[in-house]
Amino acid sequence: MKFSDLLQELNIHEHHSLSIAPDCDPEILELAAVKTARAGTLSYIEGVKFASEVDRTQASVLILPPNPTLQQKATDRHIAWISTPDPKLLFARAVPLFYRPYHPAAGIHPTAIIHPSVQIGNEVSIGAYAVIHEDVVLGDGACIYPHVVIYPAVRIGDHTILHANCTIHERTQIGADCVIHSGAVIGAEGFGFVPAPEGWVKLEQSGITVLEDRVEVGCNSTIDRPAVGETRIGYNTKLDNLVHVGHNGQTGENCVMAAQVGLAGGVQLGNWVILGGQVGVANQAQIGDRTQAGAKAGLHGTIEPNSIMMGNPASPYKVFLKSSAIYNRLPEMHQTLRKLQQQVEALQEQIRAMEEG
Amino acid sequence: MKFSDLLQELNIHEHHSLSIAPDCDPEILELAAVKTARAGTLSYIEGVKFASEVDRTQASVLILPPNPTLQQKATDRHIAWISTPDPKLLFARAVPLFYRPYHPAAGIHPTAIIHPSVQIGNEVSIGAYAVIHEDVVLGDGACIYPHVVIYPAVRIGDHTILHANCTIHERTQIGADCVIHSGAVIGAEGFGFVPAPEGWVKLEQSGITVLEDRVEVGCNSTIDRPAVGETRIGYNTKLDNLVHVGHNGQTGENCVMAAQVGLAGGVQLGNWVILGGQVGVANQAQIGDRTQAGAKAGLHGTIEPNSIMMGNPASPYKVFLKSSAIYNRLPEMHQTLRKLQQQVEALQEQIRAMEEG
Amino acid sequence: MKFSDLLQELNIHEHHSLSIAPDCDPEILELAAVKTARAGTLSYIEGVKFASEVDRTQASVLILPPNPTLQQKATDRHIAWISTPDPKLLFARAVPLFYRPYHPAAGIHPTAIIHPSVQIGNEVSIGAYAVIHEDVVLGDGACIYPHVVIYPAVRIGDHTILHANCTIHERTQIGADCVIHSGAVIGAEGFGFVPAPEGWVKLEQSGITVLEDRVEVGCNSTIDRPAVGETRIGYNTKLDNLVHVGHNGQTGENCVMAAQVGLAGGVQLGNWVILGGQVGVANQAQIGDRTQAGAKAGLHGTIEPNSIMMGNPASPYKVFLKSSAIYNRLPEMHQTLRKLQQQVEALQEQIRAMEEG
Repeated sequence: MKFSDLLQELNIHEHHSLSIAPDCDPEILELAAVKTARAGTLSYIEGVKFASEVDRTQASVLILPPNPTLQQKATDRHIAWISTPDPKLLFARAVPLFYRPYHPAAGIHPTAIIHPSVQIGNEVSIGAYAVIHEDVVLGDGACIYPHVVIYPAVRIGDHTILHANCTIHERTQIGADCVIHSGAVIGAEGFGFVPAPEGWVKLEQSGITVLEDRVEVGCNSTIDRPAVGETRIGYNTKLDNLVHVGHNGQTGENCVMAAQVGLAGGVQLGNWVILGGQVGVANQAQIGDRTQAGAKAGLHGTIEPNSIMMGNPASPYKVFLKSSAIYNRLPEMHQTLRKLQQQVEALQEQIRAMEEG
Repeated sequence: MKFSDLLQELNIHEHHSLSIAPDCDPEILELAAVKTARAGTLSYIEGVKFASEVDRTQASVLILPPNPTLQQKATDRHIAWISTPDPKLLFARAVPLFYRPYHPAAGIHPTAIIHPSVQIGNEVSIGAYAVIHEDVVLGDGACIYPHVVIYPAVRIGDHTILHANCTIHERTQIGADCVIHSGAVIGAEGFGFVPAPEGWVKLEQSGITVLEDRVEVGCNSTIDRPAVGETRIGYNTKLDNLVHVGHNGQTGENCVMAAQVGLAGGVQLGNWVILGGQVGVANQAQIGDRTQAGAKAGLHGTIEPNSIMMGNPASPYKVFLKSSAIYNRLPEMHQTLRKLQQQVEALQEQIRAMEEG
Repeated sequence: MKFSDLLQELNIHEHHSLSIAPDCDPEILELAAVKTARAGTLSYIEGVKFASEVDRTQASVLILPPNPTLQQKATDRHIAWISTPDPKLLFARAVPLFYRPYHPAAGIHPTAIIHPSVQIGNEVSIGAYAVIHEDVVLGDGACIYPHVVIYPAVRIGDHTILHANCTIHERTQIGADCVIHSGAVIGAEGFGFVPAPEGWVKLEQSGITVLEDRVEVGCNSTIDRPAVGETRIGYNTKLDNLVHVGHNGQTGENCVMAAQVGLAGGVQLGNWVILGGQVGVANQAQIGDRTQAGAKAGLHGTIEPNSIMMGNPASPYKVFLKSSAIYNRLPEMHQTLRKLQQQVEALQEQIRAMEEG
């Protein structure tokens, strides 16, 4: 694809914040990071701090931040460029013009075992050895990869993709345009046991799990159904790999959970909550809109909207950064404290002597 | 089901600690949390702190704690009620009267591949595309969901359930009435490598993994087999999702591990040990009976029975709560300490001057 | 196998650092830990601190450290022994003489679905219900267990083993002599989303995942592919269960990651890096050769080679051990500090009075 075609495909002329290099129109053959780019590569620079990359890159086309120095450098090196306030976002919009992940054609593999009661939309793909139980509904364009198992009474929305080896348990409702990655398990029994004199007694999990539209669930992640009511993942929320959402968890829209995050039972996240890797959220915690938690944070109780939290138990990040910086000086502080105690005792003794003398 | 039938099914009259509302006998149609209950719902109140819910709920039947005020409130609102010291436990016993998870009928799907040497008990269910290798024994009423793979020489006890897409490795022994959830892997090779000049050398794992009766293993959890000897999960122990038990791990009975707990190699848990989410237990640690560890705790060494531990490295919870409360005042303490040093120096100077003067 | 045969098989005479018991030649029937050994058992003692086990064990053959006292004890108890500086390593070399994990015979199961374009080496084993898409290459002796799904254009090296229920995504390259354990997912889409006014926009992941020779990946672990470029796991690197490696992660050779480790995007590990259980490494962190991190550590930024790190945020272990030892004395320190403040104020008051008086 020529640079000029890219501009057209991205509707660049409709965006006033863009500047366009006037005079070169290279062929774009591939995508790469700016460091490994070569002739024919489209790449991007996230911000001014990567400016030196513009001096060195072999890329033919760059997406740049709106910085005249960078633009001039690119022009000087005969690199075609587009400038935009969010280069990574424009790059994300460009990628599908050059690359599409593997997607099987519509059609039902003869080895798929599909209960006669299953309702199948138009242009659905069902892969080899998929097993789909009774009363399942598959929306138009749904894509079921090989070896997916769907328990009874599940609903899968239009254009939703279930990757190989994932398992969807009974009565789960998955919206449209969702992606469930390999090995994920949605809607399995929540962890409900009640202590009794004879040992733990199972609390059967009669509720359901609901994923709204555009949700993505990473590989080997698990989202449980509850004893009563529902577990619900909000619109356009994205879960990375190996994430756990316990029974009755609720998220707003556009939340993000990095890998290995765990939500205990009954957690509520607002909208646009971002949880770093390995964050844990305690039972029944309520996390306000746009709150962010750094990797490994432990959240509990009620967290106000717009908080940025770190540490376990989590504190506002400014407090945490100050405290953790001093943490390593604890031995020194401890020593200082002992020395001060001795000095104060000596002073007390001296004064006592002076008063008596 | 009528309220009066529920009382009969639960054998309420045999329990002296229960009180029964005398005069109303509503039909029970469903189960729900007290907040979302409506006419025809059976729900429960865990304790007096949820008292205000009794004023608001639309439930037709409530299970209450033994509190006369709550009982009177319920009676006044024409809610049928049962009172018991452990409402959640009675609710757990009631749920199966209204809800049973999906369970396939007995029978062997024609696509299951079963080695001729496999011994199959009575009333066993084997789902589509299950693969069962040589010398496996399946007890009466065992339920093997679709896409389960069982390696050779495994024993599965009576009425044990293996959910879709789980994998049981060679020579594993699983007791009766166990539940292995989707994606779990039991009895795979432990992580055994020995450093050598040429790099890590594999230590083959010749031992076995044993799950005693009534064990549950959550989705995508992993329990490894050891180089020699066995990994053993004790009677009625419950593991949530994404839990890891390393080679030679041993647990007593009735232990509970919340999601994402990890036990390193050779860990020993006593009976009734409860580990919160994301807890880690170090190599060879020995954890006494009835010990509890808060979420994210890091346990190592020997922990006495009945301990309640928090933090990493874990401390008794009272110590941890005090210390972590002060943690965020470290910057302030550090400043105070510097100020005190200056003040003491000034005092020393003054006294020196006074003594000289 | 006789003890004398074991010596021959292990080529003991070629190793000068070994001493051999002269006069007994027991039959070896099994392997066990020294504590549970009985007649006919081969076992080992890792170091002198386990010396008392030599007094008690029922083992017939022991591998000992080069310690004359232990050797004499063993001889006195008529235990045949070999002495070597690294008993566990020699034990690891001996295990395959007595135990081999289950390995299916070469051959292709008739239910495996293999695209006609797939290239299959010699002596390959492909299990029941495996699904192998177009343009995959399987090296000689590769072993694909039942229910493995391989997406298009994947390369699997010679003698590599893929256990049941694992999933290999498109264009992944796996070297020779690798082992991928059950449920692992290699080469799935990295977690790439860019915030936009309308919500998170997917950044398609056009890169690839590469595993060099002799890599092992534990059960249910996940290694993602990146937006551009590659994710690469170096030669002989070993990952335990439930490990996550994010997009663009790079490791050197002979790294070890214990269970539940998580590497965020773009992490670089040098050679021989060892990460304890539940360690997290932050985005773009660079970890030097031979660095070790204790369980639950949180690494970020640049870590020098040969570091030993603990805590979150991680510190050199000596600093961490001192600081964490004092952590629990924070309440006491806080009290001391307040008392000192009062004492200093009193002293200031006294001196003021003396100066005025």
